[in-house]
Amino acid sequence: MKHTPESEICTRISHFQKKLQEKNIQGSIILLNSDMFYFTGTVQNSFLYIPDSGEPILMVKRSMRRALDESPLKNIVSIKSPKQIPQILSDFGYNSMGKIGFELDVLPVNVYKTYEKIFPNIEFYDISPLIRGMRSIKSPYEIQLLRNAVGVIDESFLQVPSFLREGMAEVELAALFEAEMRKRGYSGCCRNRAFNQEFFYGNVCTGSSGFCPSFFDGPVGGSGVSASHPQGAGWKKVNRDEVVYIDYTCIIEGYAGDQTRVFCMGQLTPRMAKAFEDAVLIESEVAKSIKPGTLSQEPYFLALKMAEEMGYKDNFMGYKEDRVKFLGHGIGLELDEWPVLAKGSKIPIMPGMTFAMEPKFVFPEGAIGTESSFVMTETGLENMTTIPEVITYLK
Amino acid sequence: MKHTPESEICTRISHFQKKLQEKNIQGSIILLNSDMFYFTGTVQNSFLYIPDSGEPILMVKRSMRRALDESPLKNIVSIKSPKQIPQILSDFGYNSMGKIGFELDVLPVNVYKTYEKIFPNIEFYDISPLIRGMRSIKSPYEIQLLRNAVGVIDESFLQVPSFLREGMAEVELAALFEAEMRKRGYSGCCRNRAFNQEFFYGNVCTGSSGFCPSFFDGPVGGSGVSASHPQGAGWKKVNRDEVVYIDYTCIIEGYAGDQTRVFCMGQLTPRMAKAFEDAVLIESEVAKSIKPGTLSQEPYFLALKMAEEMGYKDNFMGYKEDRVKFLGHGIGLELDEWPVLAKGSKIPIMPGMTFAMEPKFVFPEGAIGTESSFVMTETGLENMTTIPEVITYLK
Repeated sequence: MKHTPESEICTRISHFQKKLQEKNIQGSIILLNSDMFYFTGTVQNSFLYIPDSGEPILMVKRSMRRALDESPLKNIVSIKSPKQIPQILSDFGYNSMGKIGFELDVLPVNVYKTYEKIFPNIEFYDISPLIRGMRSIKSPYEIQLLRNAVGVIDESFLQVPSFLREGMAEVELAALFEAEMRKRGYSGCCRNRAFNQEFFYGNVCTGSSGFCPSFFDGPVGGSGVSASHPQGAGWKKVNRDEVVYIDYTCIIEGYAGDQTRVFCMGQLTPRMAKAFEDAVLIESEVAKSIKPGTLSQEPYFLALKMAEEMGYKDNFMGYKEDRVKFLGHGIGLELDEWPVLAKGSKIPIMPGMTFAMEPKFVFPEGAIGTESSFVMTETGLENMTTIPEVITYLK
Repeated sequence: MKHTPESEICTRISHFQKKLQEKNIQGSIILLNSDMFYFTGTVQNSFLYIPDSGEPILMVKRSMRRALDESPLKNIVSIKSPKQIPQILSDFGYNSMGKIGFELDVLPVNVYKTYEKIFPNIEFYDISPLIRGMRSIKSPYEIQLLRNAVGVIDESFLQVPSFLREGMAEVELAALFEAEMRKRGYSGCCRNRAFNQEFFYGNVCTGSSGFCPSFFDGPVGGSGVSASHPQGAGWKKVNRDEVVYIDYTCIIEGYAGDQTRVFCMGQLTPRMAKAFEDAVLIESEVAKSIKPGTLSQEPYFLALKMAEEMGYKDNFMGYKEDRVKFLGHGIGLELDEWPVLAKGSKIPIMPGMTFAMEPKFVFPEGAIGTESSFVMTETGLENMTTIPEVITYLK
C-alpha cells in the first residue's frame, strides 16, 4: 500500500503552522478523516495536535499498529480518551494556549461541548477555512493521484460499450460501471465537507430520469432506487434513442476525480445532440478564459452568459426552479473542495488548483452535457481527461 | 418507487409529539437525512418543523417537486433560506417557543451558530436521544423492509461460489459482491450517526487481511485498498485453504441489514474451523438468553464469558489491544442504531427492536465468525437470515 511521502507531510505541516502563527493560534486539534489523512498519511480513530511550531502529536485510540506503519510523524502515542489530551500536550511541553483551532464546520455540537470541558478558558477558533485554503493548492504528488483517479473513470467509460444493453435497469448499468472502478481500486466513501451532502459513487440517468431533481447540490439528480437515497441510478429501463448520461466520481488513494460522458444506443434528437455540442463549446471557451488570478465566479458567469445566449435559460445546470448557480467545484480529498466556480465565490484561481467543470442542460427528455477534471498551471488550464468529450453512439 | 405510507408517518409524528410534550419542548427542527426520511418519507434539501401538537411543516429548498410527490405531509412549502423559518412558523400559528429541539449529536457547530442567530433567546435542546429511542422500536412495515435488505445480502452470498476464484484480488471479489447487491437495489450511502465513522459497503478479508485492524468501530478491519480509506477489501490475492470472510451491509429502501458469511476454497485449519463453530454456538446461546426486558449489555457479557471460557480471551471481537467491547448493534435507517449490545449499554431489549449480532474472532491467520440480523418479538429473538450459518467450502 502506498504511503504519503514524509516530505509531503512535512511541507503541509509547516505551511499550516505558518498560517497558525499569522492568526496567533497556538495550536490546532484535527479530527476529520480527510484532514487527518492530509496531515498524517493515516486515518485512525485518533486526535492530531499541530502546534504553531515544533513537532505534531498524533494520539491514537485505534489502531496504533496501523498509525505507526502508515504515518511518517515522529510523535505517535496511544490514548484512551480525549480527556487525556491536555496532559499529553503538557508532557510534550505544549502548555500555554490562548486560542486553539478546531474544524468547526464539521464538528458536531455534542463533540464540541466535550472539548469545551477538556479545554476550559481557551478560545476555540474555526481553522477549517485555513485548511480548505491550503488544501486547494495541490502539490505535484497530489495532482498525480488525481490524474490516476481520472484515468480510472476514463478506463471505466471505455468499458461501457461492452455491457450497455437495451432493457437493462439503470441500477444494473450502475452496478457494472461501479464494479469497473471498484476493481481498479475505488477506495471508499466519497467525502463531502458540507452537512448532509452524502454522495454515493455517481449518477446514471437515462432519458427522462435526467429530469428528476435531487437534494444533492448538483445540476442533475436522478431518481435513485429509493426515496431514502433519492439520487443517481433508478429502476428505469434503458431505451434506444435516448441519452445515457453517466457522471461518476472515482476515489483513488483518497483523491476524487469527477467526469461525465454520454452514450446513446441509436440516435439522439437534434436538440439533444446540439445541446451536447454547446456544452462542450462552453467548457472549452470557459477553459480558455481562465488565467492565473481569475476569480472563481467568473467561469460561472461566462458559462451562464453563453448558455443564455444559446437559448438555454431554463435548462442550464438544472431545470427552471431546480437550477444550481455554479459551473464546477474543487476536487481532491473531498468532492466539495475549494474553489467552487459559483456566483459569489471570489477565490483567485491559482496554479495547483484542481476542479471539475460540468456545463450541463436539463430537459424533460433528459440531461446532457459534459464534465472533466482540470488542473490550473502557470500558463493556463489543463484538462486531465484521457478520452475525448464526444457522444459515444452504439448500435 | 415505494412511498412510506401516510399511516406510518402519522404514527411516528404523533409518537414524537408525545415525547416533546413530556419534555416541555414546544417544537423541533429536523435536518439529518435519516431522521428527515423517517418523519417525512422524503429526503430533500429541507427543514422539517414538528410542533408539540398540530401539523408539521416541511420547508423545502430543493426539490419541491420531489417533496410533494414523495411525502404525505400536509404542509409542504418552499423556502430559500433558513432565515425564513421563524416567519413561516409564525404564519402557521407557531409563535411561542421556550425550548426548541435540534439534532445536536450531528449538527456541525457552524450550522448550530446560524440557528442561534435565527432563534435568539430560545433554549436549544438535544432531541437526538428521543429520536434514537423511538426509532429503535420498528413497526411491522419497517421490519419487512429490514427483511428485504437481509434477503438481498443472503441472495448475494449465494452467488459467491459462481465468482470466487483463487488468485483474484480481494477488491475484485468485493466489486463482484457489491454489484450483486447493487443491481438488486442497494440504495446508497450507509448512514452512521457517529462522527467520522464513515462506512463503505462492507468487508472482504481473506486470510491474514483479517488481522489488519481499522479505525472503524467493528471487530474486524481489513487493509482497504488505500491508507485514505483503511477498511475492507484490499489488494491481497485470495488463496486456497484460507478463510474468505465477507461481512456486508445492504441498504434497501433506506434500511440496513448486516450479515457475515465465510467461505473457503479447500480446507481451513482445525483451529479456524473450531472457532467458527464456537462463534455460531455463542450466537445461538446468546440469542436464546435474550427475553423482552434483557438489558442490552447482557448479551455482550454472556458472549464474552463464553468466549473466554473457550480460550479466546485475546481473540474475541478483535485481537488483543484492538478488541472492541460490544457484540452487536442496532440496525435500521442507520448502522449504529440503538440498542448497542455493549458494555455499559443498559437499554431493555423490547419487541420491535432489530440488531445484528456478530461474535467474531481474530487470529494472525485471519478473522472468522458469524453475523446475522435479528428482530425481537414478544416471545423471543428471531433470526431474520434466510440462509444457514455454515462455512461454505468450495473446491
